[in-house]
Amino acid sequence: MSTTLDRLAVVLVATRNPLNIGAAARAMSNFGIGDLRVVNPYKVAFRKARSAVGAAELLSEATEYGSVAEAVADCSLVVGTTAGRKRELHHPLHVLQKGSALMRKRLARSRVALLFGSERIGLRNQDMSHCHWLMHIATCDAHISMNLGQAVAVCLYELTRNTKLAQAPTPEKEKFADAADTERLSGLLLEALSLSHYLKPGITNEEKARRLLLRLKMNKRDAAVLAGMLRQILWKLKSPKK
Amino acid sequence: MSTTLDRLAVVLVATRNPLNIGAAARAMSNFGIGDLRVVNPYKVAFRKARSAVGAAELLSEATEYGSVAEAVADCSLVVGTTAGRKRELHHPLHVLQKGSALMRKRLARSRVALLFGSERIGLRNQDMSHCHWLMHIATCDAHISMNLGQAVAVCLYELTRNTKLAQAPTPEKEKFADAADTERLSGLLLEALSLSHYLKPGITNEEKARRLLLRLKMNKRDAAVLAGMLRQILWKLKSPKK
Repeated sequence: MSTTLDRLAVVLVATRNPLNIGAAARAMSNFGIGDLRVVNPYKVAFRKARSAVGAAELLSEATEYGSVAEAVADCSLVVGTTAGRKRELHHPLHVLQKGSALMRKRLARSRVALLFGSERIGLRNQDMSHCHWLMHIATCDAHISMNLGQAVAVCLYELTRNTKLAQAPTPEKEKFADAADTERLSGLLLEALSLSHYLKPGITNEEKARRLLLRLKMNKRDAAVLAGMLRQILWKLKSPKK
Repeated sequence: MSTTLDRLAVVLVATRNPLNIGAAARAMSNFGIGDLRVVNPYKVAFRKARSAVGAAELLSEATEYGSVAEAVADCSLVVGTTAGRKRELHHPLHVLQKGSALMRKRLARSRVALLFGSERIGLRNQDMSHCHWLMHIATCDAHISMNLGQAVAVCLYELTRNTKLAQAPTPEKEKFADAADTERLSGLLLEALSLSHYLKPGITNEEKARRLLLRLKMNKRDAAVLAGMLRQILWKLKSPKK
Protein backbone atom coordinates (compact mmCIF):
# COMPACT_ATOMS: atom_id res chain seq x y z
CA MET A 1 0.00 0.00 0.00
CA SER A 2 1.97 2.99 -1.19
CA THR A 3 -0.23 6.04 -1.52
CA THR A 4 -3.25 7.55 0.11
CA LEU A 5 -5.40 6.86 -2.93
CA ASP A 6 -4.52 3.18 -2.75
CA ARG A 7 -6.56 3.04 0.43
CA LEU A 8 -9.80 4.00 -1.30
CA ALA A 9 -12.17 1.25 -2.43
CA VAL A 10 -15.06 2.01 -4.77
CA VAL A 11 -17.92 -0.38 -4.03
CA LEU A 12 -20.74 -0.83 -6.55
CA VAL A 13 -23.81 -2.44 -5.00
CA ALA A 14 -26.28 -4.35 -7.20
CA THR A 15 -25.36 -2.49 -10.37
CA ARG A 16 -27.55 -3.46 -13.31
CA ASN A 17 -26.05 -1.88 -16.40
CA PRO A 18 -22.69 -3.20 -17.68
CA LEU A 19 -22.01 0.19 -19.26
CA ASN A 20 -22.17 1.76 -15.83
CA ILE A 21 -19.72 -0.71 -14.31
CA GLY A 22 -17.43 0.00 -17.25
CA ALA A 23 -17.90 3.76 -16.85
CA ALA A 24 -17.14 3.59 -13.13
CA ALA A 25 -13.96 1.62 -13.88
CA ARG A 26 -12.92 4.11 -16.53
CA ALA A 27 -13.37 7.07 -14.18
CA MET A 28 -11.35 5.17 -11.59
CA SER A 29 -8.42 4.77 -13.95
CA ASN A 30 -8.70 8.42 -14.96
CA PHE A 31 -8.32 9.48 -11.35
CA GLY A 32 -5.84 6.84 -10.25
CA ILE A 33 -8.08 4.68 -8.06
CA GLY A 34 -7.46 0.95 -8.51
CA ASP A 35 -9.59 -0.90 -5.96
CA LEU A 36 -13.01 -1.77 -7.45
CA ARG A 37 -15.37 -4.03 -5.51
CA VAL A 38 -18.76 -5.18 -6.73
CA VAL A 39 -21.53 -6.56 -4.55
CA ASN A 40 -24.17 -8.76 -6.16
CA PRO A 41 -23.95 -7.30 -9.64
CA TYR A 42 -26.35 -8.68 -12.19
CA LYS A 43 -24.23 -11.57 -13.45
CA VAL A 44 -24.51 -10.69 -17.10
CA ALA A 45 -23.74 -7.04 -16.39
CA PHE A 46 -20.49 -7.86 -14.66
CA ARG A 47 -19.38 -10.29 -17.35
CA LYS A 48 -20.16 -7.81 -20.10
CA ALA A 49 -18.48 -4.96 -18.24
CA ARG A 50 -15.25 -6.94 -18.06
CA SER A 51 -14.82 -6.37 -21.74
CA ALA A 52 -15.50 -2.64 -21.47
CA VAL A 53 -13.26 -0.24 -23.31
CA GLY A 54 -10.53 1.63 -21.51
CA ALA A 55 -10.39 -0.05 -18.13
CA ALA A 56 -9.97 -3.74 -18.86
CA GLU A 57 -7.07 -4.22 -16.48
CA LEU A 58 -8.87 -2.59 -13.58
CA LEU A 59 -12.03 -4.58 -14.23
CA SER A 60 -10.15 -7.86 -14.41
CA GLU A 61 -8.83 -7.18 -10.92
CA ALA A 62 -12.19 -6.16 -9.48
CA THR A 63 -13.39 -8.41 -6.67
CA GLU A 64 -16.93 -9.67 -6.29
CA TYR A 65 -18.68 -9.97 -2.93
CA GLY A 66 -21.93 -11.51 -1.74
CA SER A 67 -22.71 -8.78 0.77
CA VAL A 68 -21.85 -5.21 1.66
CA ALA A 69 -20.52 -6.41 5.02
CA GLU A 70 -17.88 -8.57 3.32
CA ALA A 71 -17.00 -5.91 0.78
CA VAL A 72 -16.21 -3.27 3.41
CA ALA A 73 -14.82 -5.52 6.15
CA ASP A 74 -11.29 -4.05 6.00
CA CYS A 75 -12.41 -0.39 5.88
CA SER A 76 -12.48 1.88 8.91
CA LEU A 77 -14.75 4.42 7.22
CA VAL A 78 -17.69 3.49 5.01
CA VAL A 79 -19.42 6.28 3.08
CA GLY A 80 -22.64 5.87 1.11
CA THR A 81 -23.69 8.07 -1.78
CA THR A 82 -27.27 9.19 -2.25
CA ALA A 83 -29.23 11.57 -4.44
CA GLY A 84 -31.75 11.97 -1.63
CA ARG A 85 -31.94 14.99 0.56
CA LYS A 86 -34.19 14.03 3.37
CA ARG A 87 -35.30 10.44 3.38
CA GLU A 88 -32.33 9.05 5.30
CA LEU A 89 -32.64 10.77 8.60
CA HIS A 90 -30.77 7.92 10.27
CA HIS A 91 -27.45 9.18 8.93
CA PRO A 92 -25.55 12.43 8.81
CA LEU A 93 -25.57 13.75 5.24
CA HIS A 94 -22.61 15.72 3.87
CA VAL A 95 -22.29 17.53 0.59
CA LEU A 96 -19.49 16.14 -1.62
CA GLN A 97 -16.97 18.88 -0.87
CA LYS A 98 -17.21 18.47 2.87
CA GLY A 99 -17.43 14.69 2.68
CA SER A 100 -14.34 14.43 0.49
CA ALA A 101 -12.31 16.46 2.94
CA LEU A 102 -13.35 14.09 5.73
CA MET A 103 -12.53 11.06 3.58
CA ARG A 104 -9.10 12.39 2.64
CA LYS A 105 -8.25 12.83 6.30
CA ARG A 106 -9.12 9.23 7.03
CA LEU A 107 -7.40 7.94 3.89
CA ALA A 108 -4.11 9.28 5.22
CA ARG A 109 -4.27 6.53 7.81
CA SER A 110 -6.61 3.73 6.86
CA ARG A 111 -8.92 2.20 4.28
CA VAL A 112 -12.11 3.94 3.21
CA ALA A 113 -15.00 2.52 1.17
CA LEU A 114 -17.22 4.66 -1.06
CA LEU A 115 -20.53 2.95 -1.89
CA PHE A 116 -22.75 3.50 -4.92
CA GLY A 117 -26.18 1.86 -5.16
CA SER A 118 -28.08 0.48 -8.10
CA GLU A 119 -29.22 2.74 -10.93
CA ARG A 120 -32.87 2.31 -10.13
CA ILE A 121 -33.13 2.61 -6.37
CA GLY A 122 -29.69 3.60 -5.12
CA LEU A 123 -28.52 2.14 -1.82
CA ARG A 124 -31.16 0.35 0.22
CA ASN A 125 -31.56 1.08 3.92
CA GLN A 126 -29.88 -2.22 4.66
CA ASP A 127 -26.82 -1.19 2.62
CA MET A 128 -26.79 2.22 4.26
CA SER A 129 -26.75 0.67 7.71
CA HIS A 130 -23.12 -0.25 7.00
CA CYS A 131 -22.26 3.39 6.38
CA HIS A 132 -20.87 5.87 8.88
CA TRP A 133 -22.45 8.71 6.94
CA LEU A 134 -23.87 9.64 3.56
CA MET A 135 -22.72 12.03 0.90
CA HIS A 136 -24.50 13.76 -1.97
CA ILE A 137 -23.44 15.85 -4.93
CA ALA A 138 -24.86 19.38 -4.99
CA THR A 139 -27.32 19.23 -7.89
CA CYS A 140 -30.46 21.09 -8.92
CA ASP A 141 -33.46 20.28 -6.79
CA ALA A 142 -35.41 19.56 -9.96
CA HIS A 143 -32.91 16.95 -11.22
CA ILE A 144 -31.12 15.43 -8.28
CA SER A 145 -30.54 11.95 -9.67
CA MET A 146 -27.26 11.56 -11.51
CA ASN A 147 -26.17 8.83 -13.88
CA LEU A 148 -24.06 6.29 -11.97
CA GLY A 149 -20.92 6.59 -14.09
CA GLN A 150 -21.08 10.36 -13.95
CA ALA A 151 -21.61 10.39 -10.20
CA VAL A 152 -18.54 8.16 -9.74
CA ALA A 153 -16.48 10.49 -11.96
CA VAL A 154 -17.56 13.62 -10.09
CA CYS A 155 -16.90 12.06 -6.67
CA LEU A 156 -13.43 10.84 -7.66
CA TYR A 157 -12.63 14.20 -9.25
CA GLU A 158 -13.47 15.96 -5.99
CA LEU A 159 -11.66 13.36 -3.89
CA THR A 160 -8.43 13.59 -5.86
CA ARG A 161 -8.66 17.37 -6.09
CA ASN A 162 -5.34 18.95 -5.13
CA THR A 163 -3.76 15.61 -4.33
CA LYS A 164 -0.60 14.61 -6.06
CA LEU A 165 -1.01 11.18 -7.52
CA ALA A 166 2.08 9.87 -5.77
CA GLN A 167 2.41 10.66 -2.09
CA ALA A 168 4.70 9.44 0.62
CA PRO A 169 3.04 6.90 2.90
CA THR A 170 1.99 8.24 6.28
CA PRO A 171 3.02 6.18 9.26
CA GLU A 172 0.04 4.51 10.90
CA LYS A 173 -1.00 6.00 14.20
CA GLU A 174 -4.03 4.85 16.12
CA LYS A 175 -5.93 2.21 14.21
CA PHE A 176 -9.64 2.77 13.77
CA ALA A 177 -12.03 -0.11 14.20
CA ASP A 178 -12.83 -1.54 10.79
CA ALA A 179 -16.21 -2.74 9.58
CA ALA A 180 -15.50 -6.35 10.60
CA ASP A 181 -14.83 -5.21 14.19
CA THR A 182 -18.12 -3.32 14.23
CA GLU A 183 -19.97 -6.27 12.76
CA ARG A 184 -18.57 -8.57 15.46
CA LEU A 185 -19.55 -6.12 18.18
CA SER A 186 -23.07 -5.60 16.93
CA GLY A 187 -23.52 -9.38 16.74
CA LEU A 188 -22.50 -9.74 20.38
CA LEU A 189 -24.63 -6.78 21.46
CA LEU A 190 -27.70 -8.11 19.68
CA GLU A 191 -27.26 -11.52 21.27
CA ALA A 192 -27.01 -9.98 24.73
CA LEU A 193 -30.04 -7.79 24.11
CA SER A 194 -32.01 -10.67 22.76
CA LEU A 195 -31.19 -12.87 25.77
CA SER A 196 -32.27 -9.99 28.01
CA HIS A 197 -35.55 -9.63 26.09
CA TYR A 198 -34.61 -6.07 25.12
CA LEU A 199 -35.54 -6.82 21.54
CA LYS A 200 -36.70 -9.45 19.13
CA PRO A 201 -34.26 -10.48 16.42
CA GLY A 202 -34.87 -8.74 13.11
CA ILE A 203 -33.30 -6.70 10.35
CA THR A 204 -34.43 -3.34 11.73
CA ASN A 205 -32.84 -3.99 15.09
CA GLU A 206 -29.63 -5.17 13.50
CA GLU A 207 -29.48 -2.02 11.44
CA LYS A 208 -30.16 0.17 14.46
CA ALA A 209 -27.45 -1.53 16.50
CA ARG A 210 -24.95 -1.28 13.65
CA ARG A 211 -25.68 2.39 13.08
CA LEU A 212 -25.33 3.14 16.76
CA LEU A 213 -21.97 1.39 16.96
CA LEU A 214 -20.74 3.13 13.81
CA ARG A 215 -21.63 6.50 15.30
CA LEU A 216 -19.29 5.78 18.21
CA LYS A 217 -16.18 6.08 15.98
CA MET A 218 -14.21 3.74 18.23
CA ASN A 219 -10.61 2.67 17.80
CA LYS A 220 -9.55 -0.93 17.26
CA ARG A 221 -8.31 -1.53 20.78
CA ASP A 222 -11.50 -0.24 22.41
CA ALA A 223 -13.58 -2.34 20.05
CA ALA A 224 -11.67 -5.40 21.21
CA VAL A 225 -12.12 -4.47 24.88
CA LEU A 226 -15.87 -3.94 24.38
CA ALA A 227 -16.17 -7.24 22.55
CA GLY A 228 -14.44 -8.96 25.48
CA MET A 229 -16.85 -7.34 27.93
CA LEU A 230 -19.86 -8.39 25.92
CA ARG A 231 -18.58 -11.95 25.60
CA GLN A 232 -18.24 -12.17 29.36
CA ILE A 233 -21.73 -10.73 29.89
CA LEU A 234 -23.07 -13.23 27.37
CA TRP A 235 -21.38 -16.08 29.15
CA LYS A 236 -23.07 -15.00 32.36
CA LEU A 237 -26.46 -14.54 30.70
CA LYS A 238 -26.25 -18.05 29.30
CA SER A 239 -25.16 -19.73 32.49
CA PRO A 240 -27.18 -18.07 35.24
CA LYS A 241 -26.30 -20.63 37.88
CA LYS A 242 -22.54 -19.92 38.03
CA MET B 1 -31.55 29.00 -11.67
CA SER B 2 -29.14 31.89 -11.41
CA THR B 3 -28.78 34.22 -14.37
CA THR B 4 -25.09 33.52 -14.49
CA LEU B 5 -25.57 29.87 -15.34
CA ASP B 6 -28.11 30.80 -18.00
CA ARG B 7 -25.27 32.37 -19.93
CA LEU B 8 -23.32 29.12 -20.31
CA ALA B 9 -23.73 27.10 -23.51
CA VAL B 10 -22.47 23.52 -23.74
CA VAL B 11 -21.44 22.77 -27.32
CA LEU B 12 -20.98 19.17 -28.48
CA VAL B 13 -19.01 18.96 -31.71
CA ALA B 14 -19.41 15.92 -34.00
CA THR B 15 -20.56 13.61 -31.24
CA ARG B 16 -21.01 10.03 -32.44
CA ASN B 17 -22.69 8.12 -29.65
CA PRO B 18 -26.31 8.94 -28.79
CA LEU B 19 -25.73 7.73 -25.24
CA ASN B 20 -23.09 10.42 -24.83
CA ILE B 21 -25.38 13.19 -26.04
CA GLY B 22 -28.00 11.91 -23.62
CA ALA B 23 -25.43 11.71 -20.81
CA ALA B 24 -24.25 15.26 -21.48
CA ALA B 25 -27.86 16.48 -21.38
CA ARG B 26 -28.51 14.62 -18.16
CA ALA B 27 -25.45 16.15 -16.47
CA MET B 28 -26.60 19.56 -17.66
CA SER B 29 -29.98 19.17 -16.02
CA ASN B 30 -28.30 17.89 -12.85
CA PHE B 31 -26.22 21.05 -12.64
CA GLY B 32 -28.82 23.51 -13.89
CA ILE B 33 -27.39 24.32 -17.32
CA GLY B 34 -30.08 24.54 -20.00
CA ASP B 35 -28.40 25.65 -23.21
CA LEU B 36 -27.24 22.63 -25.25
CA ARG B 37 -25.91 23.17 -28.77
CA VAL B 38 -24.81 20.42 -31.11
CA VAL B 39 -22.59 20.89 -34.15
CA ASN B 40 -22.74 18.27 -36.90
CA PRO B 41 -23.79 15.35 -34.77
CA TYR B 42 -24.13 12.02 -36.49
CA LYS B 43 -27.76 12.31 -37.55
CA VAL B 44 -28.86 9.02 -36.10
CA ALA B 45 -27.06 9.74 -32.83
CA PHE B 46 -28.90 12.99 -32.31
CA ARG B 47 -32.29 11.52 -33.14
CA LYS B 48 -31.75 8.61 -30.78
CA ALA B 49 -30.44 10.87 -28.03
CA ARG B 50 -33.65 12.89 -28.14
CA SER B 51 -35.40 9.98 -26.55
CA ALA B 52 -32.77 9.59 -23.83
CA VAL B 53 -33.92 9.04 -20.29
CA GLY B 54 -33.92 11.87 -17.82
CA ALA B 55 -33.27 14.91 -19.96
CA ALA B 56 -35.91 14.80 -22.68
CA GLU B 57 -37.01 18.40 -22.24
CA LEU B 58 -33.50 19.76 -22.44
CA LEU B 59 -32.73 17.66 -25.52
CA SER B 60 -35.90 18.75 -27.27
CA GLU B 61 -34.75 22.36 -26.90
CA ALA B 62 -31.19 21.70 -28.05
CA THR B 63 -30.23 23.60 -31.19
CA GLU B 64 -28.30 22.13 -34.07
CA TYR B 65 -25.63 24.05 -35.99
CA GLY B 66 -23.66 23.42 -39.16
CA SER B 67 -20.42 24.86 -37.85
CA VAL B 68 -18.64 25.81 -34.65
CA ALA B 69 -18.56 29.43 -35.79
CA GLU B 70 -22.35 29.60 -35.91
CA ALA B 71 -22.76 27.74 -32.64
CA VAL B 72 -20.60 30.15 -30.66
CA ALA B 73 -21.48 33.36 -32.49
CA ASP B 74 -23.19 34.99 -29.48
CA CYS B 75 -20.49 34.05 -26.93
CA SER B 76 -17.74 36.41 -25.77
CA LEU B 77 -15.58 33.60 -24.43
CA VAL B 78 -15.12 30.21 -26.12
CA VAL B 79 -13.35 27.48 -24.20
CA GLY B 80 -12.31 24.12 -25.66
CA THR B 81 -11.81 20.97 -23.64
CA THR B 82 -9.00 18.53 -24.32
CA ALA B 83 -7.44 15.48 -22.76
CA GLY B 84 -4.11 16.43 -24.30
CA ARG B 85 -1.29 17.96 -22.40
CA LYS B 86 1.08 19.27 -25.03
CA ARG B 87 -0.13 18.91 -28.54
CA GLU B 88 -2.03 22.20 -28.68
CA LEU B 89 0.73 24.69 -28.28
CA HIS B 90 -1.28 27.25 -30.16
CA HIS B 91 -3.50 27.85 -27.15
CA PRO B 92 -3.06 28.56 -23.49
CA LEU B 93 -4.04 25.45 -21.52
CA HIS B 94 -5.66 25.74 -18.09
CA VAL B 95 -6.46 23.03 -15.63
CA LEU B 96 -10.22 22.77 -14.90
CA GLN B 97 -10.10 24.54 -11.53
CA LYS B 98 -8.34 27.59 -12.91
CA GLY B 99 -10.34 27.61 -16.13
CA SER B 100 -13.65 27.44 -14.28
CA ALA B 101 -12.75 30.43 -12.17
CA LEU B 102 -12.00 32.41 -15.33
CA MET B 103 -15.24 31.26 -16.94
CA ARG B 104 -17.33 32.20 -13.92
CA LYS B 105 -15.91 35.71 -14.00
CA ARG B 106 -16.92 36.10 -17.61
CA LEU B 107 -20.34 34.49 -17.07
CA ALA B 108 -21.19 37.29 -14.67
CA ARG B 109 -21.30 39.60 -17.69
CA SER B 110 -21.73 37.69 -20.93
CA ARG B 111 -22.24 34.38 -22.71
CA VAL B 112 -19.60 31.67 -22.56
CA ALA B 113 -19.36 28.51 -24.70
CA LEU B 114 -17.75 25.30 -23.48
CA LEU B 115 -16.82 22.92 -26.33
CA PHE B 116 -16.46 19.14 -26.24
CA GLY B 117 -15.13 17.23 -29.25
CA SER B 118 -15.99 13.83 -30.62
CA GLU B 119 -15.36 10.67 -28.62
CA ARG B 120 -12.70 9.43 -30.97
CA ILE B 121 -10.53 12.42 -31.75
CA GLY B 122 -11.73 15.24 -29.53
CA LEU B 123 -11.76 18.75 -30.95
CA ARG B 124 -9.95 19.16 -34.25
CA ASN B 125 -7.47 22.00 -34.76
CA GLN B 126 -10.09 23.74 -36.85
CA ASP B 127 -12.62 23.62 -34.00
CA MET B 128 -9.99 24.78 -31.53
CA SER B 129 -9.24 27.79 -33.67
CA HIS B 130 -12.53 29.23 -32.41
CA CYS B 131 -11.41 28.91 -28.80
CA HIS B 132 -9.83 31.59 -26.65
CA TRP B 133 -8.09 28.95 -24.61
CA LEU B 134 -8.25 25.25 -23.70
CA MET B 135 -9.01 23.46 -20.50
CA HIS B 136 -8.25 19.96 -19.25
CA ILE B 137 -9.27 17.88 -16.27
CA ALA B 138 -6.43 16.79 -13.97
CA THR B 139 -6.24 13.04 -14.57
CA CYS B 140 -3.60 10.33 -14.25
CA ASP B 141 -0.92 10.57 -16.92
CA ALA B 142 -1.50 6.91 -17.72
CA HIS B 143 -5.24 7.39 -18.41
CA ILE B 144 -5.86 10.94 -19.54
CA SER B 145 -8.81 10.33 -21.84
CA MET B 146 -12.19 10.58 -20.15
CA ASN B 147 -15.56 9.39 -21.33
CA LEU B 148 -17.46 12.31 -22.90
CA GLY B 149 -20.49 12.20 -20.60
CA GLN B 150 -18.25 11.95 -17.54
CA ALA B 151 -16.05 14.83 -18.69
CA VAL B 152 -19.14 17.03 -19.15
CA ALA B 153 -20.37 16.09 -15.67
CA VAL B 154 -17.02 16.86 -14.02
CA CYS B 155 -16.66 20.22 -15.83
CA LEU B 156 -20.17 21.33 -14.89
CA TYR B 157 -19.67 20.17 -11.33
CA GLU B 158 -16.57 22.34 -11.05
CA LEU B 159 -18.20 25.28 -12.82
CA THR B 160 -21.23 25.30 -10.55
CA ARG B 161 -19.11 24.66 -7.47
CA ASN B 162 -20.07 26.99 -4.64
CA THR B 163 -23.08 28.33 -6.52
CA LYS B 164 -26.34 27.68 -4.78
CA LEU B 165 -27.82 24.86 -6.82
CA ALA B 166 -29.36 22.88 -4.10
CA GLN B 167 -30.01 23.75 -0.57
CA ALA B 168 -28.18 21.01 1.20
CA PRO B 169 -29.72 20.63 4.59
CA THR B 170 -27.34 21.54 7.37
CA PRO B 171 -26.81 18.41 9.40
CA GLU B 172 -28.58 18.74 12.71
CA LYS B 173 -26.33 19.83 15.50
CA GLU B 174 -25.98 16.80 17.69
CA LYS B 175 -25.84 17.19 21.39
CA PHE B 176 -22.88 15.39 22.84
CA ALA B 177 -23.33 13.28 25.88
CA ASP B 178 -22.34 15.24 28.96
CA ALA B 179 -20.26 14.07 31.89
CA ALA B 180 -23.32 13.00 33.85
CA ASP B 181 -24.48 10.78 30.99
CA THR B 182 -21.06 9.15 30.81
CA GLU B 183 -20.95 8.70 34.57
CA ARG B 184 -24.35 7.00 34.55
CA LEU B 185 -23.29 4.72 31.71
CA SER B 186 -20.01 3.72 33.27
CA GLY B 187 -21.83 2.91 36.51
CA LEU B 188 -24.20 0.60 34.66
CA LEU B 189 -21.38 -0.98 32.65
CA LEU B 190 -19.29 -1.64 35.75
CA GLU B 191 -22.23 -3.24 37.53
CA ALA B 192 -22.89 -5.54 34.55
CA LEU B 193 -19.23 -6.46 34.32
CA SER B 194 -18.99 -7.08 37.99
CA LEU B 195 -22.06 -9.36 37.98
CA SER B 196 -20.50 -11.22 35.05
CA HIS B 197 -17.21 -11.62 36.95
CA TYR B 198 -15.40 -9.63 34.25
CA LEU B 199 -13.80 -7.50 36.95
CA LYS B 200 -13.74 -6.77 40.60
CA PRO B 201 -15.01 -3.36 41.71
CA GLY B 202 -12.23 -0.82 42.16
CA ILE B 203 -11.06 2.66 41.28
CA THR B 204 -8.76 1.54 38.45
CA ASN B 205 -11.57 -0.28 36.71
CA GLU B 206 -13.96 2.64 37.08
CA GLU B 207 -11.41 4.95 35.50
CA LYS B 208 -10.76 2.54 32.69
CA ALA B 209 -14.45 2.21 31.94
CA ARG B 210 -14.98 5.96 32.03
CA ARG B 211 -12.03 6.68 29.78
CA LEU B 212 -13.23 4.09 27.33
CA LEU B 213 -16.72 5.58 27.24
CA LEU B 214 -15.34 9.10 26.82
CA ARG B 215 -13.24 7.99 23.88
CA LEU B 216 -16.43 6.91 22.14
CA LYS B 217 -17.54 10.59 21.84
CA MET B 218 -21.17 9.54 21.78
CA ASN B 219 -24.13 11.83 21.45
CA LYS B 220 -26.79 12.26 24.11
CA ARG B 221 -29.41 10.16 22.39
CA ASP B 222 -27.09 7.19 21.85
CA ALA B 223 -25.91 7.43 25.46
CA ALA B 224 -29.54 7.12 26.56
CA VAL B 225 -30.13 4.14 24.28
CA LEU B 226 -27.00 2.39 25.56
CA ALA B 227 -28.02 3.06 29.16
CA GLY B 228 -31.40 1.49 28.43
CA MET B 229 -29.73 -1.56 26.94
CA LEU B 230 -27.44 -1.97 29.91
CA ARG B 231 -30.32 -1.58 32.37
CA GLN B 232 -32.16 -4.38 30.62
CA ILE B 233 -29.09 -6.61 30.61
CA LEU B 234 -28.62 -5.88 34.30
CA TRP B 235 -32.21 -6.79 35.02
CA LYS B 236 -31.66 -10.13 33.33
CA LEU B 237 -28.34 -10.73 35.09
CA LYS B 238 -29.99 -10.13 38.46
CA SER B 239 -33.05 -12.28 37.85
CA PRO B 240 -31.72 -15.34 36.04
CA LYS B 241 -34.88 -17.38 36.46
CA LYS B 242 -37.12 -15.15 34.34
